[in-house]
Amino acid sequence: MTPLSAEARKWGEEMVSHAAFFHGRGWVAGTAGNLSVRPPEGPVLITPSGRHKGTLSIGDLVAVSSEGSPVGEKGGRPSAETSLHAAIYGSVPKAGAVYHVHTVESNLVSLWAQDGGVGLPPLEMLKGLGVVGENPSARMEVFPNWPEVPKIADEVVKRFGEGGFDVPGFLIRLHGLTVWGEDPAQALHHVELMDFVFRYLVLERQTRERGKVFQVPGPSGGP
Amino acid sequence: MTPLSAEARKWGEEMVSHAAFFHGRGWVAGTAGNLSVRPPEGPVLITPSGRHKGTLSIGDLVAVSSEGSPVGEKGGRPSAETSLHAAIYGSVPKAGAVYHVHTVESNLVSLWAQDGGVGLPPLEMLKGLGVVGENPSARMEVFPNWPEVPKIADEVVKRFGEGGFDVPGFLIRLHGLTVWGEDPAQALHHVELMDFVFRYLVLERQTRERGKVFQVPGPSGGP
Amino acid sequence: MTPLSAEARKWGEEMVSHAAFFHGRGWVAGTAGNLSVRPPEGPVLITPSGRHKGTLSIGDLVAVSSEGSPVGEKGGRPSAETSLHAAIYGSVPKAGAVYHVHTVESNLVSLWAQDGGVGLPPLEMLKGLGVVGENPSARMEVFPNWPEVPKIADEVVKRFGEGGFDVPGFLIRLHGLTVWGEDPAQALHHVELMDFVFRYLVLERQTRERGKVFQVPGPSGGP
Amino acid sequence: MTPLSAEARKWGEEMVSHAAFFHGRGWVAGTAGNLSVRPPEGPVLITPSGRHKGTLSIGDLVAVSSEGSPVGEKGGRPSAETSLHAAIYGSVPKAGAVYHVHTVESNLVSLWAQDGGVGLPPLEMLKGLGVVGENPSARMEVFPNWPEVPKIADEVVKRFGEGGFDVPGFLIRLHGLTVWGEDPAQALHHVELMDFVFRYLVLERQTRERGKVFQVPGPSGGP
Repeated sequence: MTPLSAEARKWGEEMVSHAAFFHGRGWVAGTAGNLSVRPPEGPVLITPSGRHKGTLSIGDLVAVSSEGSPVGEKGGRPSAETSLHAAIYGSVPKAGAVYHVHTVESNLVSLWAQDGGVGLPPLEMLKGLGVVGENPSARMEVFPNWPEVPKIADEVVKRFGEGGFDVPGFLIRLHGLTVWGEDPAQALHHVELMDFVFRYLVLERQTRERGKVFQVPGPSGGP
Repeated sequence: MTPLSAEARKWGEEMVSHAAFFHGRGWVAGTAGNLSVRPPEGPVLITPSGRHKGTLSIGDLVAVSSEGSPVGEKGGRPSAETSLHAAIYGSVPKAGAVYHVHTVESNLVSLWAQDGGVGLPPLEMLKGLGVVGENPSARMEVFPNWPEVPKIADEVVKRFGEGGFDVPGFLIRLHGLTVWGEDPAQALHHVELMDFVFRYLVLERQTRERGKVFQVPGPSGGP
Repeated sequence: MTPLSAEARKWGEEMVSHAAFFHGRGWVAGTAGNLSVRPPEGPVLITPSGRHKGTLSIGDLVAVSSEGSPVGEKGGRPSAETSLHAAIYGSVPKAGAVYHVHTVESNLVSLWAQDGGVGLPPLEMLKGLGVVGENPSARMEVFPNWPEVPKIADEVVKRFGEGGFDVPGFLIRLHGLTVWGEDPAQALHHVELMDFVFRYLVLERQTRERGKVFQVPGPSGGP
Repeated sequence: MTPLSAEARKWGEEMVSHAAFFHGRGWVAGTAGNLSVRPPEGPVLITPSGRHKGTLSIGDLVAVSSEGSPVGEKGGRPSAETSLHAAIYGSVPKAGAVYHVHTVESNLVSLWAQDGGVGLPPLEMLKGLGVVGENPSARMEVFPNWPEVPKIADEVVKRFGEGGFDVPGFLIRLHGLTVWGEDPAQALHHVELMDFVFRYLVLERQTRERGKVFQVPGPSGGP
């Protein structure tokens, strides 16, 4: 691909190190997952299709336009889910990174959706996702896992037009988590925070008394 | 900030390495958590607001007084939860480090509080938290997660005045764990030990026979 | 053993690094597990019997024929489960690597077999195992853990002749997981993906409502 | 302490690296756990009291006799549980290493003892603990956690005299796991294998159908 600016290279290298971190956590098993960055100047850099995420280097990244079309002369095949990245870059002008990972908990939680979404518990951690207030309330959208990825991307774009998302990310049913951030660091934060929330939801259900509805009272513990 | 003494630098560097260790464990997801040390001479050093804990260096730390006011000329913004650190340093003269982390298990366990506290199981591990005896008994305080952090800090100070804590730490509801120690090493030990206790409590509940009350007999196994 | 070609050495070194990765994950506790590669030219290289997998080097590997007979002059004793590797190399001409690991989840899941197999959930992750379609359906074979390993190997060979496997791997009851791939990288991917599936199955059962049958509707969430 | 032979140093360094590994796994939280080796020539080397296991070096080890008495001129205070190590070295002539760790699962499993022991599931993994046969059967002893450690040690010695142990290790109620091996490597293997068994037992109970007794049929799956 065409030579990268120093800043684009920095963003790409940061993303590559995040990909290896995700592998260490077990969030991109096999060749699962795909990551991209959109540096301030220059094209979107996305991980190639069918590659393990624990051993990438910056030379493996593929340059595409914000619409997902290959840019430049050479390079591997961009991720098969590039259209999902393009859906977000097209809808969120400030998005500088889109990370898509597969965690076991995110797969399980996606099954608990009602009316296309999962209610998030009122954890302090939600602040890092932009959800504030004494008893924060938010839900995470869960999209069907259509075999045609562009069809999922269309639904995501549609949702942006219909009111958007409570948090910077969404689930695809039995598939995985997609988040965005202004830069690689923020996208990393969002992945970590949503993983925290999913692990909480799973633990909470594992220890829940049978037949008891999950309810959290106000901060003083009152009803 | 003003130059650090060799010992203050050593304490700060130790804390920075503990912060990275906590990140590796998943205890400071996103930009969650905040850590501080109070070296024998010199100001309190606290982690800056809104920063990931896996990539800090000593130059990122912010110097504040034991009361939490910024010290020196420059530096980032101290953690938004500095008042909690000040509450502990003001109440525990020997406290040399205060670590605040967010673990999934500590969030869940905080929900199990009754009368503002959670009973701790009689594990050998409690010895490391200062709880001794054949069938040790102790409880962990759980404070409401008031949106105004100084309000939580006030309740912590009040609790110190009313009899203090069974163990060197407390929970904030659906928020996280705060511990203190005489130095960075002891604060690290206390975080690890309390995490052990929380993971035990969660596993115990996951495997508990329905309707069975958790009871531990004496060491000989008798009733 | 006889000198290795550059490519055989590369395959062997890749396998040794995978063995250390498996140890870090807890998948080859004690001296459990055994791995082999069949480079394009040259003999099969297999891990020695009774060795910890976290500290192997390429010199520890034992050269055997595709049928499992020792090759060359010296070398340690090949794994006691070499016959299982030979069963796969003999049945799958393109197999270039066979990895056998012991994970806690794979042991537990093996108990859930009905009619000699476990149904796999319709996760996106199955694509990496070659299972495609809108609502993918596949099962994993589970063989009895006969004390005589060649007897297990015979059943595996028989199964290849009777229709083969839905996915490139199988379980042995209360024993572990065996996978194959065209090269070390693909075998690694397959281990990671199957581990993902097993962890999903365990979490799903831990959180399942009592008496509720696990059913996944179509991608749109409809019945 | 007196200078170590090259071999004693090698054993000590291996143990120190195992201690750091255990810390990484969360098995020696705080300052919990203690490890010792008895090299072919020279005194027993044991970890010092009250030290974190993630940052030891060989100079921190304390030399004691097989009976647990300090040897040589200087050195830290030996572990408060030295008498347990001495009990094993005195009873098992071939024991070259004794490792005592605290895992969450081992604490929980210790509560499930009946008549002073926990039945082990018939996993292939038991082979690494010396338990063989088509449907292996073994139990792990669970001792009361007497506040006086020598009293536990006495019970261990008594048990050796009364028939010994099915596996090279035992539990102390709500305290932790102690294993031995001929050398540091084998002691490491035994810790890993027993951890595997405990994690299996916990997962099995978490997913058990209510009211269903855990039973494993023969290898063919028949009754």
